[in-house]
Amino acid sequence: MSGLADVAPRHDESAGYQWEPSDAQIAAAWGIDPAQVVRFDTNTSPRTPPSLVAWIGAAASPPAAPLNEYPDTTYAALTAAISANTGAASSRVVVGAGADEVLDIAARTFLPPGGRAVVATPSYGMYPVITRQRHAALVEVPRGSALDGFPLDADRLAQAATGADLLWLCDPNNPTGTVEAPGVLRALLDRLAAGPGGGPVVVVDEAYREFAGPSLVDEVGRFPRLVVVRTLSKAYGLAGVRVGYGVAQEPLLARLSAVRPPGSIATLSAAIGAAALREGAFARSNVAAIGLERERFRSALERVGWHVEPSVTNFLLLDAGGPGEAGAAAARLLRRGFVPRRFGAGPLRGHLRITVRTADQDDRLVAALAEGTT
Amino acid sequence: MSGLADVAPRHDESAGYQWEPSDAQIAAAWGIDPAQVVRFDTNTSPRTPPSLVAWIGAAASPPAAPLNEYPDTTYAALTAAISANTGAASSRVVVGAGADEVLDIAARTFLPPGGRAVVATPSYGMYPVITRQRHAALVEVPRGSALDGFPLDADRLAQAATGADLLWLCDPNNPTGTVEAPGVLRALLDRLAAGPGGGPVVVVDEAYREFAGPSLVDEVGRFPRLVVVRTLSKAYGLAGVRVGYGVAQEPLLARLSAVRPPGSIATLSAAIGAAALREGAFARSNVAAIGLERERFRSALERVGWHVEPSVTNFLLLDAGGPGEAGAAAARLLRRGFVPRRFGAGPLRGHLRITVRTADQDDRLVAALAEGTT
Repeated sequence: MSGLADVAPRHDESAGYQWEPSDAQIAAAWGIDPAQVVRFDTNTSPRTPPSLVAWIGAAASPPAAPLNEYPDTTYAALTAAISANTGAASSRVVVGAGADEVLDIAARTFLPPGGRAVVATPSYGMYPVITRQRHAALVEVPRGSALDGFPLDADRLAQAATGADLLWLCDPNNPTGTVEAPGVLRALLDRLAAGPGGGPVVVVDEAYREFAGPSLVDEVGRFPRLVVVRTLSKAYGLAGVRVGYGVAQEPLLARLSAVRPPGSIATLSAAIGAAALREGAFARSNVAAIGLERERFRSALERVGWHVEPSVTNFLLLDAGGPGEAGAAAARLLRRGFVPRRFGAGPLRGHLRITVRTADQDDRLVAALAEGTT
Repeated sequence: MSGLADVAPRHDESAGYQWEPSDAQIAAAWGIDPAQVVRFDTNTSPRTPPSLVAWIGAAASPPAAPLNEYPDTTYAALTAAISANTGAASSRVVVGAGADEVLDIAARTFLPPGGRAVVATPSYGMYPVITRQRHAALVEVPRGSALDGFPLDADRLAQAATGADLLWLCDPNNPTGTVEAPGVLRALLDRLAAGPGGGPVVVVDEAYREFAGPSLVDEVGRFPRLVVVRTLSKAYGLAGVRVGYGVAQEPLLARLSAVRPPGSIATLSAAIGAAALREGAFARSNVAAIGLERERFRSALERVGWHVEPSVTNFLLLDAGGPGEAGAAAARLLRRGFVPRRFGAGPLRGHLRITVRTADQDDRLVAALAEGTT
């Protein structure tokens, strides 16, 4: 562990992934107490739902399903809660251990060995990993510049996606923090659907959708090749529970379900996830609170001289001016236990990505950045 | 849902799997109350550890990791508990959401598209599924007859495994309920290791090991191509928690870890699993209780005229005499909510597999079988 270099994921020859280091690893690398570590690098919620302990208690007592038995292979209660929350029919819902597993199921289902996927970059680091794990090729289509808000290049995407098996899209996009203008994704989906064979399967990762709607779940009925992926790890404040889901028309859903492992979501997790989706109020108030804090955080960062890209999400992208400056700022933060996200090579090598956390934590991060290069 | 046919898993063209039906599906198919359903088909423990509620309480309160954050990607506490429980070094442990995920990680790691795996049949139904999902071929080497205790055919296995990528072994074996004679697996591992390239990777699935030792974990140091897979779903009574693990030497472990998803085990599950492994006493007493009940259950079944194969595990294999008889007996049970496991085609098509449960549940199953074809 060299500390800094390990903040960003790295790919190795075996198509594997070097995951975000643990709190303990970061503490060891920087000679600090693990209790000091604050994760500004994983875009989680700064809080859990207030009813969480009650939900766990209910899930751990009769008449809840006993934990000596396997989970319900159909995850019927969780699926029903997703259906009620989103308006999608239960027959169009597939569940997974976080959005990550749903993305992986999609890769397994739609990407044959030697196949081809397309992605608009920069985007979520998992798409290249799971594409390569399928022994498939990945075509990267760069987004527009930061000045323009990192927009999709619909023409180049449509061109690259012709004849491809799968198109990975993330909206709102991680790590740019931006959302496409209204109608852009629908127009792209229409254009791809008119292509040979109805176009590639399009996976739209809506991990951050609650921060900027509307969801494409409502459009699934119009697009037989669309899979919308969502998660409880962000707005719902339940990243440790590992629940995500996908929505697609029944023929695609049947193919996803055939590959889905039968019991990857723990019984307690499925019950907590269902309760969180049934409640719903926390996610809405959490998104509102994070949105307010995001703009306060942005102003505070700008006051100490940082250039902050516009964001509709629960994270901010800071332009440090160059890779050296970004590295120095990251070191300054890590020495105090504040973990930023860095981006090895590529167009964002001079940026840091910072999760919006509590006002207190955010203020301490601003103070650390303002202290200069001590 | 046609009921009977759905009790056994089925393969479809897309290499998917029809999972065990849920309680609700079985109840609907047989016109009974879901609360009446008793799973004799999944080989789970009839009870959870007595400390489970306390473990959940501790995992849900500070200073436990908060659930708004992702799980520790290294699962350090769980891995340390596995290490202490098994004596294997932490550097030789990979964790997964149940043994199923560890098996899947092994398939992803060691089976290239177009590769070849070997399995001794009959065995666990997941091996063919995950082999086919990798677009790899599967060579089946039949075990010996029931009369001989379904032994491995070491000569034919060694022959078939020459040049193969992966050998799937299950010991004690599901669904036969038998264990290999002492030294058989070690001799086979020695023989394979002497082959070209050190032989195939050998995955020994020890899901039922606690019921008949010793574990091959102690032999990992001798075999650089061995992966031993274990689970908390059987003796530990925690199938709903979804925790399993693999043990292998560091070079193999590094390859498995590169493919392992970073957060497939929920934070609560990892904490419960670690607590269960640290305690350990429950698994031992549970195994002892299940062993006693198994022999009582066997005698009761034999008294009402059933032929029951020898078993060292927590399930019994009943020879119904033929597929028609097995089907009729299964229907008799399912009508009362007792779910047996059946085996579509193949050498066990005339058998039922029955989990050892509580004395009361087992007695009710015996009574249902004894009532004849009403």
